[in-house]
Amino acid sequence: MARIAADLAELLGPGKVSIRGADLELHAADKWYARQVPDIVVFAESVQDVSKTLRFASQASIPVTTRGAGVGYVGGCVPVEGGIVLSVARMNRIVELNPADGVAVVQPGVITADLQKAAWAAGWDYPPDPASLKECSIGGNIATNAGGPRCLKYGVTRSYVLGLEVVLADGRVMRCGGRVHKNKTGFDLCGLFTGSEGMLGVVTEATLRLIPKPPARAMLAAVFGEFSAAAAAVQEILNRGHLPSALEITDGFTLAAARKRLGAEMLPDGQAHLIVEIDGRPAAVKSELKELESLLQELGATRVDRAANEAACDEIWRLRREFSYSLRDTGLTKLNEDIVVPRSKLVALVEFARRLEEECGIPIACFGHAGDGNIHTNLMVADFENPEVREKAEKALDQLFAWVLDHGGAITGEHGVGLAKKPWIRKALGPVLFEAHQALKEALDPQGILNPGKFLD
Amino acid sequence: MARIAADLAELLGPGKVSIRGADLELHAADKWYARQVPDIVVFAESVQDVSKTLRFASQASIPVTTRGAGVGYVGGCVPVEGGIVLSVARMNRIVELNPADGVAVVQPGVITADLQKAAWAAGWDYPPDPASLKECSIGGNIATNAGGPRCLKYGVTRSYVLGLEVVLADGRVMRCGGRVHKNKTGFDLCGLFTGSEGMLGVVTEATLRLIPKPPARAMLAAVFGEFSAAAAAVQEILNRGHLPSALEITDGFTLAAARKRLGAEMLPDGQAHLIVEIDGRPAAVKSELKELESLLQELGATRVDRAANEAACDEIWRLRREFSYSLRDTGLTKLNEDIVVPRSKLVALVEFARRLEEECGIPIACFGHAGDGNIHTNLMVADFENPEVREKAEKALDQLFAWVLDHGGAITGEHGVGLAKKPWIRKALGPVLFEAHQALKEALDPQGILNPGKFLD
Repeated sequence: MARIAADLAELLGPGKVSIRGADLELHAADKWYARQVPDIVVFAESVQDVSKTLRFASQASIPVTTRGAGVGYVGGCVPVEGGIVLSVARMNRIVELNPADGVAVVQPGVITADLQKAAWAAGWDYPPDPASLKECSIGGNIATNAGGPRCLKYGVTRSYVLGLEVVLADGRVMRCGGRVHKNKTGFDLCGLFTGSEGMLGVVTEATLRLIPKPPARAMLAAVFGEFSAAAAAVQEILNRGHLPSALEITDGFTLAAARKRLGAEMLPDGQAHLIVEIDGRPAAVKSELKELESLLQELGATRVDRAANEAACDEIWRLRREFSYSLRDTGLTKLNEDIVVPRSKLVALVEFARRLEEECGIPIACFGHAGDGNIHTNLMVADFENPEVREKAEKALDQLFAWVLDHGGAITGEHGVGLAKKPWIRKALGPVLFEAHQALKEALDPQGILNPGKFLD
Repeated sequence: MARIAADLAELLGPGKVSIRGADLELHAADKWYARQVPDIVVFAESVQDVSKTLRFASQASIPVTTRGAGVGYVGGCVPVEGGIVLSVARMNRIVELNPADGVAVVQPGVITADLQKAAWAAGWDYPPDPASLKECSIGGNIATNAGGPRCLKYGVTRSYVLGLEVVLADGRVMRCGGRVHKNKTGFDLCGLFTGSEGMLGVVTEATLRLIPKPPARAMLAAVFGEFSAAAAAVQEILNRGHLPSALEITDGFTLAAARKRLGAEMLPDGQAHLIVEIDGRPAAVKSELKELESLLQELGATRVDRAANEAACDEIWRLRREFSYSLRDTGLTKLNEDIVVPRSKLVALVEFARRLEEECGIPIACFGHAGDGNIHTNLMVADFENPEVREKAEKALDQLFAWVLDHGGAITGEHGVGLAKKPWIRKALGPVLFEAHQALKEALDPQGILNPGKFLD
């Protein structure tokens, strides 16, 4: 590998290829627990670097695992077969921010929050808002088709990808889509690469759609005695013709942990917490907020807090983030499963989680994006390093995913398949769809050098 | 072919296979001018019928061109290589309309307006609204990833496709996506089939996303002295943080034709007409309408008509449709090109169209979806049957598409490639992207039986 690294260094120029132990270690894992140290790290600085690296790797049949900010939750960028980790973190330039065309052109290493801030500064908005937006990058967002709370109203990353520059496995550079907001020129290749988890090509530039920034935003935070009442409120809000920008639910287990961290006075008794965020014109937001507050009270909320301006909204989101920290406070290993169920199955899911918790003895915390049925279901495992415990946890996940699939749900809504969901992907896709995936992979990466060892192997 | 038809009839049962001249004639063309009579028409009534037909056709290497309602604008369903036209028009059932899950499950032959009405009746909405929505079908909408005026705010058909049942070229039945609103299970196959123009598989069922129906709607119709002032208004409306559900522009040529049809008093002097539609909560719509009316006046509109309720909105849309009819009144052949330009290029496009018109002597009418730069550019050709005229028209189209591509635009935003855009597709895609298309086609339809003779041949 030293020889290969030297050849690569000669090809790419100084400072872009490393076999230093510290660099290799830093590129072995994401936020999930799997680790594999690569043989070489390439720090690409341009599309040419990516193209040269892939041409070289395809000629030498070396695995290439592309990496953005490395904050994925499913081990998607773990180089399980070694070889090269191709980091695009240095390609972090916002190339253009163009409100006249309603687009931003960015390199893959741009941090999502940086793009959002730049758009806001121009009076425009880039809506996708994964929870990790301050650390994750656009390249990773595209690789996983990242979502977030506001996707209920605004759609996931895919809805904002207008054009991509992609380097194919053999090093050829391809541009699909463009800077126009509608495009029917051929098949939807932008869509195919978005969410392809580094297995079909390497994105080196993205042209993203911006929308006018809604000038006002407001929120309600409601507590309900029962989870089922909060879930019913979710449906009734939508039935009444509201389309909130976020509709987030939290279950009793998480609330109990939050009370411990924050003090009981912050969160009165109740088995569910519901956040409703709306945005739009200032006058519109003001009147809709009133309507929603009455509706929540009518639907049995035992407490409704109102946030009528940006600062108050941020305060509620801060509280919401505390829920996650309070789960962390438990000291348990959190297996965060981003399952999705049809919206009518929200209550059934939480009831199932309670039964599963009793059966397996692992506490389960549910919270997330109620409007689109994307409920993060967290198995809170004590002593995860213990093989027996791990086996028990994996059996519980088996049961969870089987239940989700039996009820018309999906095993991943936001994080992707990576390694974490690999054991269940064949069942989730079914044989014909799995074979179609393999055929598409073979078509674009016949040697299988891009992110090998993942869900198609 | 009589032998083959008999075999197919035996396979599918009575009343589903026709070689009657009248049936063949009826399945030879769409709204574009190309025609080719197929050898056989199959009227599929179920996924089994589609599967059996494709298995049979792939074994016998017979071309299969799928057809929905046959109202496409680019010859996409013309069976240029003969063989079988596979009509899914009889598969026209709304299988399920489920507000609790926010989905509709439909067969491909369902007429788009029928789905929309059914959703409205339940208090929900299916937003995609191609101009032909009263005659076109969901299958065709999916094949072309159809758009429409409201796509500015709500996105194109793709944004509403949650799940598909697809029959592959060899007859295998596959389900991708599902009934959940977020799904990262594998690659985006729903996206790949949406917009694939019948070349990758046959959609036999779609699970579509519904959204809460916005309870109120209102419109403004403004006249501007100059097209450039109207285009500037489009950008300023967005800059001020408005996201209208439609933002439609019409040029001077079209207005002149409309004045002839409707009387000058309906449309005072001016080189541009702008429609702004908004929707949302009643109080919100009311206050935003006022803001927009002031803004349009401030931006130089010489007349602003206000439609504050549903009936008044319908009246403005009716007037807008009259613009199309008035172009038809001219008796000329309308070559309707659904090009898209970056929004900042709206004025440049119309100026180019004026120059092109002078140069080639063919009047050019521009109108369409200004908010997303999707301007229908209509060459109004006298005596199109005359080969000399046709050559001149095709030369003008060459120039138009070359200009569009040179300015970062797309040659089709809504209609698809079909036969009409085939001469320009290689230039539009570029060699690497074209080869990637061929590789994907080969992966899913190795024998090339699905809609052959179209843009990849």
